[in-house]
Amino acid sequence: MAHLEHVVALAGGVGGAKMAHGLAQCLPPAVLTVIVNVGDDFEHWGLKICPDLDTVCYTLAGLANPATGWGRAEESWRVFEQVRALGGADWFRMGDLDLATHLERSRRLRAGETLSQITADFCRRWGIELTVLPITDDNVPTWVYTDIGELPFQEYFVKQQCQPRVLGFRFDGADRATPAPSVIERLRAADLVVVCPSNPWVSIDPILAIGGVREALQGRPAVAVSPIIGGKTVKGPAAKMYAELGIQPSALAVAQHYSAWLRGFVLDHADAAQTEAVESLGLVTLTTDTLMPDGAARRRLASETLAFAARL
Amino acid sequence: MAHLEHVVALAGGVGGAKMAHGLAQCLPPAVLTVIVNVGDDFEHWGLKICPDLDTVCYTLAGLANPATGWGRAEESWRVFEQVRALGGADWFRMGDLDLATHLERSRRLRAGETLSQITADFCRRWGIELTVLPITDDNVPTWVYTDIGELPFQEYFVKQQCQPRVLGFRFDGADRATPAPSVIERLRAADLVVVCPSNPWVSIDPILAIGGVREALQGRPAVAVSPIIGGKTVKGPAAKMYAELGIQPSALAVAQHYSAWLRGFVLDHADAAQTEAVESLGLVTLTTDTLMPDGAARRRLASETLAFAARL
Repeated sequence: MAHLEHVVALAGGVGGAKMAHGLAQCLPPAVLTVIVNVGDDFEHWGLKICPDLDTVCYTLAGLANPATGWGRAEESWRVFEQVRALGGADWFRMGDLDLATHLERSRRLRAGETLSQITADFCRRWGIELTVLPITDDNVPTWVYTDIGELPFQEYFVKQQCQPRVLGFRFDGADRATPAPSVIERLRAADLVVVCPSNPWVSIDPILAIGGVREALQGRPAVAVSPIIGGKTVKGPAAKMYAELGIQPSALAVAQHYSAWLRGFVLDHADAAQTEAVESLGLVTLTTDTLMPDGAARRRLASETLAFAARL
Repeated sequence: MAHLEHVVALAGGVGGAKMAHGLAQCLPPAVLTVIVNVGDDFEHWGLKICPDLDTVCYTLAGLANPATGWGRAEESWRVFEQVRALGGADWFRMGDLDLATHLERSRRLRAGETLSQITADFCRRWGIELTVLPITDDNVPTWVYTDIGELPFQEYFVKQQCQPRVLGFRFDGADRATPAPSVIERLRAADLVVVCPSNPWVSIDPILAIGGVREALQGRPAVAVSPIIGGKTVKGPAAKMYAELGIQPSALAVAQHYSAWLRGFVLDHADAAQTEAVESLGLVTLTTDTLMPDGAARRRLASETLAFAARL
């Protein structure tokens, strides 16, 4: 893989963070850029919270909670318990260590720094050498159309625990948003784009919705790793969303989701029967173990994906 | 003291909180109102912080750190250490439990609640039955004129650790500020006003500076407890301030500070020699132990002060 000089990974939550971490173990920091969804960012307790960005950064820095995949390891809940005792909103749990990230980021945003500037500095302080970019410095909140009305993403995801039936999504302001500095340049320069096994609807689509991103992806060598294994997701509501939108949840459905610009697709052995159908979309496939239960599995999947992409 | 129906205490920081706590042990909750300085309130990490209000409430609720007199007991510093690691301002230490107060208060202020409404609700949740009122719901930040320039109070007090030489004070906006609801009514109805052993310059004067307060105090039976013992303060810069302003720091100086409207003055045995001079100002005096090293001492001093006031 010595010929890969610019690899860009598109990532959302826990699955994306794990894949990004695997790639970071296989590539020099200067080669890898991770572009992260900000559609699920929101304000809570007066603070700006960027769940996907934090999950990716905590994971890359080795600070993530290994049990949950999100949040910080060795977390405590001292502030949260007191805020609750004072009558504050408690539907979104915020750990003490995690809270510090939100506090300092919010302060800097108010002081005029951009999200990408803040992310770069936090990464430096956390010892992350590769480049992590929010897809945009603008606010592009994801809204979920459901059978109980339109909900801000975190209200659907956390407060309602993904119970409402999904009818569609809206990425508010995405068409007017500007990609963060160097996003388009890095996509255009990429000799490989890896779509991590993140939720296509609410992790990857909000990235693609930002003005200029789809255009920059056209013609790039791009591979995706399926977040759906055996019709289910390891974590999160992607499979439920496909079903509610009238699409059989499957690796094939994910491949179709991206097929307009994708070249390669990585699916699990459990879905080997779908290989032919995926290839009939014009995609080259790699069938392997796509579960990432530990660090070794992340590295192996990343390594196999890079080797696969090199053969495209 | 059965005849006391409405006692109002004016309080600032640690000394004021201790005295208020002593009074709370001697009087039914419905009788006692504690009016608290807000001149040292400030914004930090994007949060509204009310140090005197919190010190008074934590003390009354039995939540205060017994070692420092301010902050919370059994405090931890998880968030603070992480914010510092991310490059955030670390000159003002904020504990995890204390931070929850600032977070929830700031959220409610942004949502439109007033400081006095929030304080009433926090007191209810903390089990404080007596009434605690910020002197005003408006912003009246204290500025300190010093030999290195004019400083916001907390920058003088915490960041500069009271090192600069004080030239004077400004209570920004105090003349245009409105007393919080019921402040004036409670002062007018008071059959006793107790000026707690707080810093006259930066704890009590900012209360007196709010429009209508001095007028409401005229003619009220008022006693003050000296925060200066043997020319020194137990805590804080009051004695240093007197000296830098060209006034010998002493119990007498404090009595003079308030003599225009005060009737009684409580001073320490250590300052018994000043009794005659204080009485020559037209004040009745009580000489006793004014140190409050523990809860029993708070209660005793409060009890003696109330008995003294009853004889006025």
